[in-house]
Amino acid sequence: MVNYPNKKKVTTQIVGHTKINNAAHRGMSLEEDISLSNQYYLSRNIAVIYKKPTPIQIVKVDYPKRESAKIVEAYYKIPSTTDYNGLYKGKYVDFEAKETKTKTFPFANISQHQIEHLQRVIDHSGIAFIIIAFTSLNEVYLVDAKHIIQGYLHSERKSMTYDQIVSVAHLIPQGYMPRLDYLKIVDKVYLKEVQDEKEIK
Amino acid sequence: MVNYPNKKKVTTQIVGHTKINNAAHRGMSLEEDISLSNQYYLSRNIAVIYKKPTPIQIVKVDYPKRESAKIVEAYYKIPSTTDYNGLYKGKYVDFEAKETKTKTFPFANISQHQIEHLQRVIDHSGIAFIIIAFTSLNEVYLVDAKHIIQGYLHSERKSMTYDQIVSVAHLIPQGYMPRLDYLKIVDKVYLKEVQDEKEIK
Repeated sequence: MVNYPNKKKVTTQIVGHTKINNAAHRGMSLEEDISLSNQYYLSRNIAVIYKKPTPIQIVKVDYPKRESAKIVEAYYKIPSTTDYNGLYKGKYVDFEAKETKTKTFPFANISQHQIEHLQRVIDHSGIAFIIIAFTSLNEVYLVDAKHIIQGYLHSERKSMTYDQIVSVAHLIPQGYMPRLDYLKIVDKVYLKEVQDEKEIK
Repeated sequence: MVNYPNKKKVTTQIVGHTKINNAAHRGMSLEEDISLSNQYYLSRNIAVIYKKPTPIQIVKVDYPKRESAKIVEAYYKIPSTTDYNGLYKGKYVDFEAKETKTKTFPFANISQHQIEHLQRVIDHSGIAFIIIAFTSLNEVYLVDAKHIIQGYLHSERKSMTYDQIVSVAHLIPQGYMPRLDYLKIVDKVYLKEVQDEKEIK
């Protein structure tokens, strides 16, 4: 493993991860909702989609007993890709999920690496999107990655407004099982055979 | 995060990971060869394939300074999927890579979870295989996952012999860049348009 060169960036990331790790104690988070939905999809043999593990730079491992190894020094690394990927109806699916408390989506939520990764997925004919949860509104949207990439690369603003997002996004149905039926939107947006590809918004 | 229920199994896994982490000091390993090949494929815009981070159960994080978080207690978890996945020519690709010093491939190298995962990938029309390196022979093979699954589930032996593997496997060309051109084999085995699907061995 290579030492991550940019400590400051790692730090920024850590806050997010810590928040996620503590999420179980604060009630349901977007990550938990997606995790439950993915488990549902897996158990019903609908799709094979997983969250990737958080990348960790391991520095020191102790072996206090013969049968157990304990990592005693490690650091969070910035992910070079998105958090989720997998397979649905023979298609490669790749996405990132973000929560926002306000009615804007700051591009700072997405790293340059992730933007490049999403563009590559599009280039290689995969399905790439962002799931954005507006937690204060209890609304969760699927946004095709190209809109976020375009905003990130070409917008003069450092964020997208709620209205801008809603104008290109698809509201994800919420329910009991699955909690967030985002594959229903994937069907509609990416896989509907009768739909003209140009109509995909 | 949920505590991993089976400590003993975690322990078994740890040895493998530690070996991998130290590989950089022992010369090139299969993991490094694949990593370099994936970087090459990515840089040439050929494919988007990554190794998933090792799953870690984080127990305790310290914040010695405001700008850095240090993980001070964590444990390896057993991966529920394979190590590698990604996108190639619009196809979902998923594989595990294993080294063996002897002329057998012990099924103990693959977990039940990984077998189930590979079967799911096949069921959902993804491309699933195992890369097996016979290090003493300096030969690296791509084996379609169905052969390993079949052996794992139905064989009376606890391993596959070198001869058994070679009879169903494809030798991966080794070179400078990419080190292991396994996508050449993927082309030949899974994507050759003229090839009858029944001929895939």
